[in-house]
Amino acid sequence: MVGKKGGISKEITPQSVDFSRWYIDTIKKADLMDYTPVRGCIVFKPDGYELWERIQQAMDRRFKETGHRNAYFPMLIPETFFEKEKEHIEGFSPELPWVTEAAGEKLEERLALRPTSETMIGHMYSQWIQSYRDLPVLINQWANVFRWEKRTLPFLRTSEFLWQEGHTAHATEEEAREETLQMLEIYREVIEEELAIPLFVGQKTPSEKFAGAIDTYSVEAMMKDGKSVQAGTSHYMGTNFAKGFEIKYLDKENQLQYVHTTSWGTSTRLIGSMIMVHGDDHGLVLPPRVAPTQVVMIPVGPSKTRDLVVEKMHHLYEQLKASDIRVRMDLRDETPGWKFNEWEMRGVPIRIELGPRDLEQNQAILARRDTGEKLPVSIEQLAAQVKEQLEAIQKDLFQRALQFQSEHMHLQINTLEQLHQHLEISEQENQVPGWVLAGWCGDDECEAKIKQETRFTTRNIPFQSPVEKEVCIHCGQQAKHTVWFARSY
Amino acid sequence: MVGKKGGISKEITPQSVDFSRWYIDTIKKADLMDYTPVRGCIVFKPDGYELWERIQQAMDRRFKETGHRNAYFPMLIPETFFEKEKEHIEGFSPELPWVTEAAGEKLEERLALRPTSETMIGHMYSQWIQSYRDLPVLINQWANVFRWEKRTLPFLRTSEFLWQEGHTAHATEEEAREETLQMLEIYREVIEEELAIPLFVGQKTPSEKFAGAIDTYSVEAMMKDGKSVQAGTSHYMGTNFAKGFEIKYLDKENQLQYVHTTSWGTSTRLIGSMIMVHGDDHGLVLPPRVAPTQVVMIPVGPSKTRDLVVEKMHHLYEQLKASDIRVRMDLRDETPGWKFNEWEMRGVPIRIELGPRDLEQNQAILARRDTGEKLPVSIEQLAAQVKEQLEAIQKDLFQRALQFQSEHMHLQINTLEQLHQHLEISEQENQVPGWVLAGWCGDDECEAKIKQETRFTTRNIPFQSPVEKEVCIHCGQQAKHTVWFARSY
Ligand SMILES: [Zn+2]
Ligand SMILES: [Zn+2]
Repeated sequence: MVGKKGGISKEITPQSVDFSRWYIDTIKKADLMDYTPVRGCIVFKPDGYELWERIQQAMDRRFKETGHRNAYFPMLIPETFFEKEKEHIEGFSPELPWVTEAAGEKLEERLALRPTSETMIGHMYSQWIQSYRDLPVLINQWANVFRWEKRTLPFLRTSEFLWQEGHTAHATEEEAREETLQMLEIYREVIEEELAIPLFVGQKTPSEKFAGAIDTYSVEAMMKDGKSVQAGTSHYMGTNFAKGFEIKYLDKENQLQYVHTTSWGTSTRLIGSMIMVHGDDHGLVLPPRVAPTQVVMIPVGPSKTRDLVVEKMHHLYEQLKASDIRVRMDLRDETPGWKFNEWEMRGVPIRIELGPRDLEQNQAILARRDTGEKLPVSIEQLAAQVKEQLEAIQKDLFQRALQFQSEHMHLQINTLEQLHQHLEISEQENQVPGWVLAGWCGDDECEAKIKQETRFTTRNIPFQSPVEKEVCIHCGQQAKHTVWFARSY
Repeated sequence: MVGKKGGISKEITPQSVDFSRWYIDTIKKADLMDYTPVRGCIVFKPDGYELWERIQQAMDRRFKETGHRNAYFPMLIPETFFEKEKEHIEGFSPELPWVTEAAGEKLEERLALRPTSETMIGHMYSQWIQSYRDLPVLINQWANVFRWEKRTLPFLRTSEFLWQEGHTAHATEEEAREETLQMLEIYREVIEEELAIPLFVGQKTPSEKFAGAIDTYSVEAMMKDGKSVQAGTSHYMGTNFAKGFEIKYLDKENQLQYVHTTSWGTSTRLIGSMIMVHGDDHGLVLPPRVAPTQVVMIPVGPSKTRDLVVEKMHHLYEQLKASDIRVRMDLRDETPGWKFNEWEMRGVPIRIELGPRDLEQNQAILARRDTGEKLPVSIEQLAAQVKEQLEAIQKDLFQRALQFQSEHMHLQINTLEQLHQHLEISEQENQVPGWVLAGWCGDDECEAKIKQETRFTTRNIPFQSPVEKEVCIHCGQQAKHTVWFARSY
């Protein structure tokens, strides 16, 4: 599906005018998704879904390299399962959709559409695990999940979404904690290397952790509006679910012990994050490693030379394809300018222009989506140059996002008053408020108060903090932790 | 998870005693699945799920090579959608589970858990397709689907299962029909080449076609109990769904036309088929191309030589891995005989035994799961020999299944009386009744009568029939079609 004639990027609201509208305009125009008649449920159209497929491949390979295997558990979860872990049901029950009838009959027990599978998997693990020899169990699931939220936003928060959820069981706390951090590190690697999104890696505060977890760790990303997206989480559950579901094993001394479990997840919200980190006023900017189309070739020049140009273009197209470059030609009956706009809006990393003068000079013009830079490249060097530029773009996107981050990290705000001032100034100057690194005494009330007054929430306690803070930003007491605060999706 | 000590295959009911019990025993013991507390829903355990992953890869590659792309549509389908195609709702509504409540509130309209996505996709296509330039639309979806059936059987018929469903829209009938047959051919290729299951390719009779289709084609497989599994189907829908959902396009003459649609699907029932085609009284027999483990290495001989043997084994293990062979070592503290049983039961195509005498002779013993044959192989030749044998096993499994088919195809039964006689004799001799090729006049009543009296249903009208029949097996009138009849899952 391709949009109608006429400068498409003009239909995209500039980021500086309204970032949310820019986002919605972009993903619709770039044909990544569509709305449906089912509340909060979207279609992942082929270009949107292919981004997910590439994320899946990158994740799945690493899961398998670290000894995990995939499995598939039922989507429907009996109501009684939720009651076995108290915090868990409190966290999820307000958002559950329920199946109450099937095949013309009312069910005896309501079945929830899974919001996550700890309960079903906990139940199964309790049957599968008997002895220390059965441990560890290292399983991942790729699945659809449901959270019937009030406000939805395509990719970032939808009633149904796609994700992976890893669930592991271990003999010891130490091993389970190692697993929790190992998977967080895999998330960091995939998201930074494949999606070119620099991350904030750390631990969630107690109020922000997963319902039922002992400790939750997250990788968080800064969007271009300064807000945060929680891009992935990894949880150490301790023996909470083991106790709820009676997952016990006989250890080497023949003693019955509870297992220690972990879970970890990333979802299609990564697609939304990637768009909000790299996109610009012309539309999408896709990192080459995940872009469905890496290179688009467009013939230019007068129509009388078109046949000759297209003939040569086919030849170059085959060369690029043979070099494993995801390339397409746009030979539609539209002006080059219209096509340039179209493919810019769709975020294709490299455009190659070829016209009669290029043929004469045995060259093609290579234009970068991220910088707009145009390079003449000799035909013989084309595939090699494209590969080099794709790598350069991937690297530069990451560096540019890192630069944006560092420009919007505020390390000198130490009191709530200073934070208020910062927010006022940001608003006056139409600047994004960004992230604030602040001390926190560890008191839930201080955290709640800051959220209430500023909508800034704790993102995470960084593993490596640029500075250590000494006092709580709210109460002025001694800080227990140095924490990232930001608004978030 | 590994079973308890003691000859496991003894716990498997022989096929000749009770094929259904053999099947259930095998899939449970081989750790492919587990039951859950949700009616008719199973867990696909890692070895079971990996079979599905390999089938997915083989299918997905071919879908993409033929220009299809993946997308993802909402799982929940508004009730009103089903009412737009009359035959469709009649076919599916008796089996639908319904979401009636979400987030604490009763929904205004019930939402069905998709049994298939023609309706949702039809609705979206009506919005996406305006002009002949938008055609064809070639989309596939990998998803979970739900059919709340009364009698369930793991992998073959479960309340929730995994599948792919392709949905395409075309400008012309000719093109849509070509697509329908192209996808059927892809199914044939994957199922025959990867799963080593020889197929019967043909067209369904009107009473057996998909709810809402004009023509349904199928690939059918013969199980070792002589029953049939419909392994894949491909449907030409004509303009039925286009009319129901108003999917129209402007043709080159600016006339509004209905599109012609197709759909095609295969599911996790392929796992069940593969097991029932190749398995034997020792358990699973997996085709090498999809086997999660292709080779298992087991040390043999006295324990005092164990260290030396294991050292050499590690070395060979690395060699096989480097040759892209899916290999594992079983170094557990169990007897070789126990391990042999265990891995036979799990269907691993090749076992390699290594003992002190083998070391002396610079060889290893390679044992084939399918034939039990043992070959001494020189150490230097091991990787090459394993590869060769894996290919030989793949080929031999197919040939053996083909042989079984031809022995259980009955071409000389021409009257219902002869069919009754055949069934009686089969039962007396404890033989599988197999398939019967018979003439059919085209009358639904004749078809229904045969089913009622013998539980033989029409499988398909083969594209290439071994013989052409002249009279209807039921009424004796002139045959319109030569049809395969069989009992089926
Ligand atoms: Zn405080
Ligand atoms: Zn008849």
